[in-house]
Amino acid sequence: MSSLSQDSPTAILLISCPDQPGIVSTVSGFLFENSGNIVDVDQHVDTEEGIFFMRLEWEVEGFSIERDQIKESLRPLAEQFRMDWTLHFSDVYPRAALWVTRDNHCLYDLLSRHESGELKMEIPLILSNREQLRSVSERFGIPFHYFPITKETKAEQEAAEIALMKKENIDLVVLARYMQILSSTLVDTFPNQIINIHHSFLPAFPGAKPYHSAHRRGVKIIGATSHFVTEDLDEGPIIAQGVTQVSHRDSVSDFIRKGKDLEQTVLSRAVWLHTRRRTLVYNNRTVVFG
Amino acid sequence: MSSLSQDSPTAILLISCPDQPGIVSTVSGFLFENSGNIVDVDQHVDTEEGIFFMRLEWEVEGFSIERDQIKESLRPLAEQFRMDWTLHFSDVYPRAALWVTRDNHCLYDLLSRHESGELKMEIPLILSNREQLRSVSERFGIPFHYFPITKETKAEQEAAEIALMKKENIDLVVLARYMQILSSTLVDTFPNQIINIHHSFLPAFPGAKPYHSAHRRGVKIIGATSHFVTEDLDEGPIIAQGVTQVSHRDSVSDFIRKGKDLEQTVLSRAVWLHTRRRTLVYNNRTVVFG
Amino acid sequence: MSSLSQDSPTAILLISCPDQPGIVSTVSGFLFENSGNIVDVDQHVDTEEGIFFMRLEWEVEGFSIERDQIKESLRPLAEQFRMDWTLHFSDVYPRAALWVTRDNHCLYDLLSRHESGELKMEIPLILSNREQLRSVSERFGIPFHYFPITKETKAEQEAAEIALMKKENIDLVVLARYMQILSSTLVDTFPNQIINIHHSFLPAFPGAKPYHSAHRRGVKIIGATSHFVTEDLDEGPIIAQGVTQVSHRDSVSDFIRKGKDLEQTVLSRAVWLHTRRRTLVYNNRTVVFG
Amino acid sequence: MSSLSQDSPTAILLISCPDQPGIVSTVSGFLFENSGNIVDVDQHVDTEEGIFFMRLEWEVEGFSIERDQIKESLRPLAEQFRMDWTLHFSDVYPRAALWVTRDNHCLYDLLSRHESGELKMEIPLILSNREQLRSVSERFGIPFHYFPITKETKAEQEAAEIALMKKENIDLVVLARYMQILSSTLVDTFPNQIINIHHSFLPAFPGAKPYHSAHRRGVKIIGATSHFVTEDLDEGPIIAQGVTQVSHRDSVSDFIRKGKDLEQTVLSRAVWLHTRRRTLVYNNRTVVFG
Repeated sequence: MSSLSQDSPTAILLISCPDQPGIVSTVSGFLFENSGNIVDVDQHVDTEEGIFFMRLEWEVEGFSIERDQIKESLRPLAEQFRMDWTLHFSDVYPRAALWVTRDNHCLYDLLSRHESGELKMEIPLILSNREQLRSVSERFGIPFHYFPITKETKAEQEAAEIALMKKENIDLVVLARYMQILSSTLVDTFPNQIINIHHSFLPAFPGAKPYHSAHRRGVKIIGATSHFVTEDLDEGPIIAQGVTQVSHRDSVSDFIRKGKDLEQTVLSRAVWLHTRRRTLVYNNRTVVFG
Repeated sequence: MSSLSQDSPTAILLISCPDQPGIVSTVSGFLFENSGNIVDVDQHVDTEEGIFFMRLEWEVEGFSIERDQIKESLRPLAEQFRMDWTLHFSDVYPRAALWVTRDNHCLYDLLSRHESGELKMEIPLILSNREQLRSVSERFGIPFHYFPITKETKAEQEAAEIALMKKENIDLVVLARYMQILSSTLVDTFPNQIINIHHSFLPAFPGAKPYHSAHRRGVKIIGATSHFVTEDLDEGPIIAQGVTQVSHRDSVSDFIRKGKDLEQTVLSRAVWLHTRRRTLVYNNRTVVFG
Repeated sequence: MSSLSQDSPTAILLISCPDQPGIVSTVSGFLFENSGNIVDVDQHVDTEEGIFFMRLEWEVEGFSIERDQIKESLRPLAEQFRMDWTLHFSDVYPRAALWVTRDNHCLYDLLSRHESGELKMEIPLILSNREQLRSVSERFGIPFHYFPITKETKAEQEAAEIALMKKENIDLVVLARYMQILSSTLVDTFPNQIINIHHSFLPAFPGAKPYHSAHRRGVKIIGATSHFVTEDLDEGPIIAQGVTQVSHRDSVSDFIRKGKDLEQTVLSRAVWLHTRRRTLVYNNRTVVFG
Repeated sequence: MSSLSQDSPTAILLISCPDQPGIVSTVSGFLFENSGNIVDVDQHVDTEEGIFFMRLEWEVEGFSIERDQIKESLRPLAEQFRMDWTLHFSDVYPRAALWVTRDNHCLYDLLSRHESGELKMEIPLILSNREQLRSVSERFGIPFHYFPITKETKAEQEAAEIALMKKENIDLVVLARYMQILSSTLVDTFPNQIINIHHSFLPAFPGAKPYHSAHRRGVKIIGATSHFVTEDLDEGPIIAQGVTQVSHRDSVSDFIRKGKDLEQTVLSRAVWLHTRRRTLVYNNRTVVFG
């Protein structure tokens, strides 16, 4: 991660823990006592599973605990309630690698939103198993890394990809229509840090050629799904979904064209939510503090 | 079928046939020569399968062929182009049996739209495998037929149900949240005449308890699907679908509540389309002349 | 109000007050100290206006303060933070009067949801300025009050209507396609207690015949809006909105038919939100704790 | 216009005329007799206004009339039915000028779709009243024309703009978030050839700062509208609209962010429809042959 200053920086605390009385009052009391000016707070209880979730965002300025002491100061609270927790700062941006293959629409959408400041992340590199989108990378002055993959070279190339990600301190991999299945080694290296866009309304039409399958099935609505990648293909926690209407007039290529609108919008929304630290994963589902 | 007069009656011709040049000009020429005042015309070509579809609606009044001669007069055209075709009149209403179990929302929605004149069909009877909705039937003065079904009595009861449908000249069975699987005998007796509402966005979550499955999967959108019933459960041609957003805040019972809105709206839309002769089935898909 | 027992009863506290540090920790601390088992909590800050909003729901059972003492016990807190606040109990249902004119769809939808237990309210009466829907009232065994209104009798009839509402302890008036403009006297008598459904996507097409106007304007999407009624016609705080697609193929009567789906769904959703004490009004807007 | 070959070229005929019997059979008969292989046909009758609309698309190859004779050969038909009509060829692309100001999202979306071949048009130039997006133009190698405008220079600059459009044979002006009001001279020069995106659900919130107005009004859904530009600001024929949900949690800047998704998607859809010759304008409305 690296530091980029913008606006007044905030601290963001993401919590999940077993539900019990007193969490909200204790945590909010801690912030109040230390003069924390809360900008945003949201919580959720999964009553069935008995899990408590919370997202707290407060201004670093004026908080009575020094920025580099906050993490330490939260530890007793976290232990008291057996919290899984992460602390973020709004001016420390995720470092994202965009993985692409051939289709340009998601890539352009991400780059355009990045350029306008909507997506607060750094993009040190674009990676691809094909050459087609090199020119797009060059247009934006972002290094393009070409990793052609065959059945024989896959393991070796993935190892090189992981090494590159590590070297560049990547903590977010965005599969922007990357048309290769990731090995479990790669997936395990970035738990809940790989975001994919699948071009169907999951769990309908997993796998390859979902628009063809949807057309054959005669659906009247198509969709796109953005999710964290887990070992089970297209089975990871869903972050965002979108849909649009189709009719018998629409051919497969119309499905593909209309679906592109969904793919880019849904993927960018998921990346936005993640980079703003608004997603929490549990039991293969997400809490999205929208 | 029975005759109920309303508005100026129209004839409706539904055609599907192998695509070839000259169909549109021949059919529209036939109507023109016989002074047919076309009210609505729509066609579609499935270029992949090479099938032509058409829906023509014209006023009976002023047409130079007598109403009871129209069918005969179309026969040469139909043979020339090897058409599958049906002819309907807007003042001859389908006779619909509403099959229900316990949930009242789809039933009320259908009855309310029937009462307001939106759904142009007759409803000679309501059928159920439970007693709960008898009172609703009585409120609307529609005979309620109770067919309790156990594993042992299923074949026998279905035979009785078919006999009742035949006796009442039923040509549309609406499964308005009817919670029994139909035997293939029953399904085969009413080809493309049984409309079901399934409480998921098919093909996602077929079978029982789709809202529970959707909740477990953590989807961000839920749906409902109305389709013609075929032997394969939840696999029939889709007529209409609807969706709505959900979030991690929604429990299974919230899914069920929000889903009800979709179920009743989507089912009623499908029934409306069918009763207005706007649906055509082919290759397990529908053409919907919306 | 009257008491109807169902499920485990909860207390619901709705708060709005000037934003300042410590509200959340103080309020949640108060509940924690008194063994309140929180079922649901949600809050919002309008940072621009500096207003804090909160909805707290906790179980009456196990709370260390007696049910009839809760209100009193909250007073010091409320004064400390200068709160506007209301306290409700989930087993004390609003008493709703449904006002209708001619269209049956919203009425049936409300009655059907009431019957299924989705809408937790009492419906002691239906009121209308026309006779058409008397039969629906009778079907459901709900007293029907007929108040024909002419320009001359309007003031007098409204006075009688208000008297009837008072006599029946009505605290929610649902205008379910009631086609009369309410006088300001009537509106002022029930502040934020009258919910209307307007058949357009407000603020587009206020006033009469919105579907005709929408058709003339050539819009591609139509909508419906449910809002609290204020003195300015169609200008009150919006609770819920819904939309659906239309095309050049749709006539005004198609707009009306498709719009009905929206009207009933959107109105019922707004009534559900209100009866579950999930709405707060401020500055002619709503906070909806969905 | 210029010729770019791709796929098998088609001829596209757009017709509007007073409705009368025999149009469909005459026109389709004409194509049939000349061995026209129809690829797509759609028609519509505005029964209220008595106007007939048709879009016919057929393959140039195999048609018995030479490509450069088609227009002449249609003239008798057109006169017989008093048609307004235009003839297009799918391999003759519109020449589009993209007019922008500061926001990059619509521009990138159009350029990305153009690059992928989805938008079949030429883009000889980008025009702006600001300098900010020059770098985007340069990235794509498209000439950037800077026309700063003040109250004093407006007339003069617009004259220069029109001259440039003429010189470049522009027949489509896309206002991709161009923040200047066009004079009626400019508008009249390009009748039904200027497509704008307005960032609200028209006719709600015309004019400046619609997201601020929408936020103040407390709407629960926001929208975007693409329309042909006429002399009355934001009053032109609507081509496409899109909407998305918002809540009390969304600030004005959230409205703006969510609205951008709509703006780029809706504008690109409208441009797609127009470049595919799928739009017809009449009475300030559009027929969109989707």
